[in-house]
Amino acid sequence: MIIIGIDPGYAIVGVGVVEYKGNKFKTLEYGAITTPAGMPTVDRLKKIYTEMAAYLIKYDPDAVAIEELFFNSNQKTAINVAQARGVLLVTAANANIPIYEYTPLQVKQSVTGYGRADKGQIQQMVKMILGLNVIPKPDDAADALALAICHAHSSKMNNILGTNTVR
Amino acid sequence: MIIIGIDPGYAIVGVGVVEYKGNKFKTLEYGAITTPAGMPTVDRLKKIYTEMAAYLIKYDPDAVAIEELFFNSNQKTAINVAQARGVLLVTAANANIPIYEYTPLQVKQSVTGYGRADKGQIQQMVKMILGLNVIPKPDDAADALALAICHAHSSKMNNILGTNTVR
Repeated sequence: MIIIGIDPGYAIVGVGVVEYKGNKFKTLEYGAITTPAGMPTVDRLKKIYTEMAAYLIKYDPDAVAIEELFFNSNQKTAINVAQARGVLLVTAANANIPIYEYTPLQVKQSVTGYGRADKGQIQQMVKMILGLNVIPKPDDAADALALAICHAHSSKMNNILGTNTVR
Repeated sequence: MIIIGIDPGYAIVGVGVVEYKGNKFKTLEYGAITTPAGMPTVDRLKKIYTEMAAYLIKYDPDAVAIEELFFNSNQKTAINVAQARGVLLVTAANANIPIYEYTPLQVKQSVTGYGRADKGQIQQMVKMILGLNVIPKPDDAADALALAICHAHSSKMNNILGTNTVR
């Protein structure tokens, strides 16, 4: 199965594409969708929609795994990130790709086996699990790959599809 | 010019469509896009996208006027509304319709001439300005019509297009 992990954001959206077959991972692509600070909001959201749609068309994934949103104290940032996340969700929905969401805790436990792992430990495990030569950059791309790994592990354990879908 | 006012929301999105020509308003349609509480988030966002896109196709408006978002204290609600607003913005952006945003204060001043007008006063003025027989229901539709009126007044005063666009 092909899984696209998404680390939602407004200025930067992490994207990680993996194939998971017979307990083996293959990294197909990772990177980030970026939107410049000076660009009007609607143009930034449209750029996110268009570039995410291009990933979905290119890979036709079996699932999209996206991080659940928790608010930080900066309301302006929070609104922007939530708006961008809504755009990412509807992009996948319009392409009829099933969407699954995971909390940071679920991702940590799934990738490192340890719920209190720090960012560096997660990135090391992502590198190891995917057999990469380097830690994926930017951090958002590494986070997105961690989400894809988390979903692969989760779907392996849940033969019943539909658990953990966004509600 | 045809203007679609949008009162953003998650369970209910107010929509008001007006034509503004030679200082005269004509109400073309008003109503609401609703999404049931039991429906998964992505399906609700997709429903909002699809039904908003249908309005844009039907009327091909010159502008969309949408309310600026301010956070309430309920974070779960705030995330949902912001995600839905992101979807509404990208729907209009994908259709290449210019989007303008207004604060509740701007709408009040534009519609009633009084920044501290209450909801009832705004609704009465919407009814009067548009020459309707009744106050538009639901409230979200009346708010959406108020946004459309606000943009009509604003665009009359600003010959320079592009002011007040979403940034």
